[in-house]
Amino acid sequence: METVSTSKAYGGIQGVYRHASTATGTDMTFAVYVPPHDEGARLPVLWFLSGLTCTHANVMDKGEYRRTCAELGVILVAPDTSPRGDDVPDDDAYDFGKGAGFYVDATQEPWAKNFRMRSYVEDELPALIAAQFPMADMARQGIFGHSMGGHGALTIALRNPDRFRSVSAFAPIVSPLHCAWGEKALGGYLGSDRMAWRAYDACALIEDGARVAEILVDQGDADGFLVEQLKPELLVAACEAAGIDLTLRMQPGYDHSYNFISTFMADHVAWHAERLGR
Amino acid sequence: METVSTSKAYGGIQGVYRHASTATGTDMTFAVYVPPHDEGARLPVLWFLSGLTCTHANVMDKGEYRRTCAELGVILVAPDTSPRGDDVPDDDAYDFGKGAGFYVDATQEPWAKNFRMRSYVEDELPALIAAQFPMADMARQGIFGHSMGGHGALTIALRNPDRFRSVSAFAPIVSPLHCAWGEKALGGYLGSDRMAWRAYDACALIEDGARVAEILVDQGDADGFLVEQLKPELLVAACEAAGIDLTLRMQPGYDHSYNFISTFMADHVAWHAERLGR
Repeated sequence: METVSTSKAYGGIQGVYRHASTATGTDMTFAVYVPPHDEGARLPVLWFLSGLTCTHANVMDKGEYRRTCAELGVILVAPDTSPRGDDVPDDDAYDFGKGAGFYVDATQEPWAKNFRMRSYVEDELPALIAAQFPMADMARQGIFGHSMGGHGALTIALRNPDRFRSVSAFAPIVSPLHCAWGEKALGGYLGSDRMAWRAYDACALIEDGARVAEILVDQGDADGFLVEQLKPELLVAACEAAGIDLTLRMQPGYDHSYNFISTFMADHVAWHAERLGR
Repeated sequence: METVSTSKAYGGIQGVYRHASTATGTDMTFAVYVPPHDEGARLPVLWFLSGLTCTHANVMDKGEYRRTCAELGVILVAPDTSPRGDDVPDDDAYDFGKGAGFYVDATQEPWAKNFRMRSYVEDELPALIAAQFPMADMARQGIFGHSMGGHGALTIALRNPDRFRSVSAFAPIVSPLHCAWGEKALGGYLGSDRMAWRAYDACALIEDGARVAEILVDQGDADGFLVEQLKPELLVAACEAAGIDLTLRMQPGYDHSYNFISTFMADHVAWHAERLGR
């Protein structure tokens, strides 16, 4: 692992790191904020998965998480959203290819070789964090994300309930099976067998028996993607049927941007910190 | 004035606006955050001037000012750092021409026509804000900034002590007369007569009799520009000789980036709010 940059922030260190990923076959860049802490302390790890078009840098620049992470002693890890590089296949659209990995392991060509963001985020990067950041207590992990990254957080948490103690999301894609973004991405990466998509759909995972104790979701009611792409009512229905404690907060006047995310970031970090222990 | 975008944030509105500037002869873009407020309320106005290479967007994206502005009821205005456009003369260097207006009214060609950021920030934009934002109480203005923008804030406040009730800075250029950035910029925009530079040098303005009641400065001691360009000791000496109450806080381990600025942003906004009244 190579250190790209480190910078002191709120008493801790905001770092950017790069490594050669075996999962994606590319170099991958990610951001880690380590809050101020006592020598030998072990800190919970909160994963933030970003949305379409983002890299590790968007939430690092605009997410406003460091203040609360510093106050509550939480490490925040922000991976990229896809493999990168000139040799990686791409698509001209913003919602497919680079910047749009959808946290799946692709099975279709030409994507299958590099677009393995599920394996990367679920397995490879956690192992690297555990090895390189000795203060990271991997027994206390939470996960959250925005939009496509909210989809990633929900699906990864539902598939790994023993790994993650807490999961939340900002304006998540709750069911790729039921929106145009999902149809395009899962169809492209996984092929036309929609049964294969169900492992990457939070609502379908719940319908198929996956469980977490509780979920926190904030959703702006002025979000231009709300009706056609995000459809939180599908998650409400799935959680009600499954007995999952979902808190869905419709936030009046908020859009899909980082102005929305940053406004409720402190709430989410604190919510996770409470569940991850100190 | 044209509204480029508005987005709800921390209960208020982060807007971006554009207008045809008579001072610069170009379109100019700026950002205004209006916190949540009661109908009819009048709110203090805090100006943030940005550093080299920045537009209005850097502090808007990375400055983390909205939380405290919302809590304390402060409007924040962030102008651009230079005229923009294909017809505006430029220089290949990052520290001269576009993105490097240095808050001066240039007298030298080819800069004199457009590079009039003093007139723009001191006169034209405040008049526009007063006309377009009825909740802005122009009797309660404060000003701060970063690096080149710290220089701008200090010099504008010193030249207009009746206009600004409060002034602070992050890692300011305190004396363009005594650093390479200043030599290049003031020499280029104002010519070789260094007496003409003194109206754009905080230390020289103080030596020449300009006064403000107090100044707050935060400066990272790991800032790579500290020794050669920023030289806060010159401001300390000038303020001591003049009896100006300067609080200079050397912040251990902090660099010149927005990680430094955002860490101390809440302190500065609160410091200004206290002096601007509620």
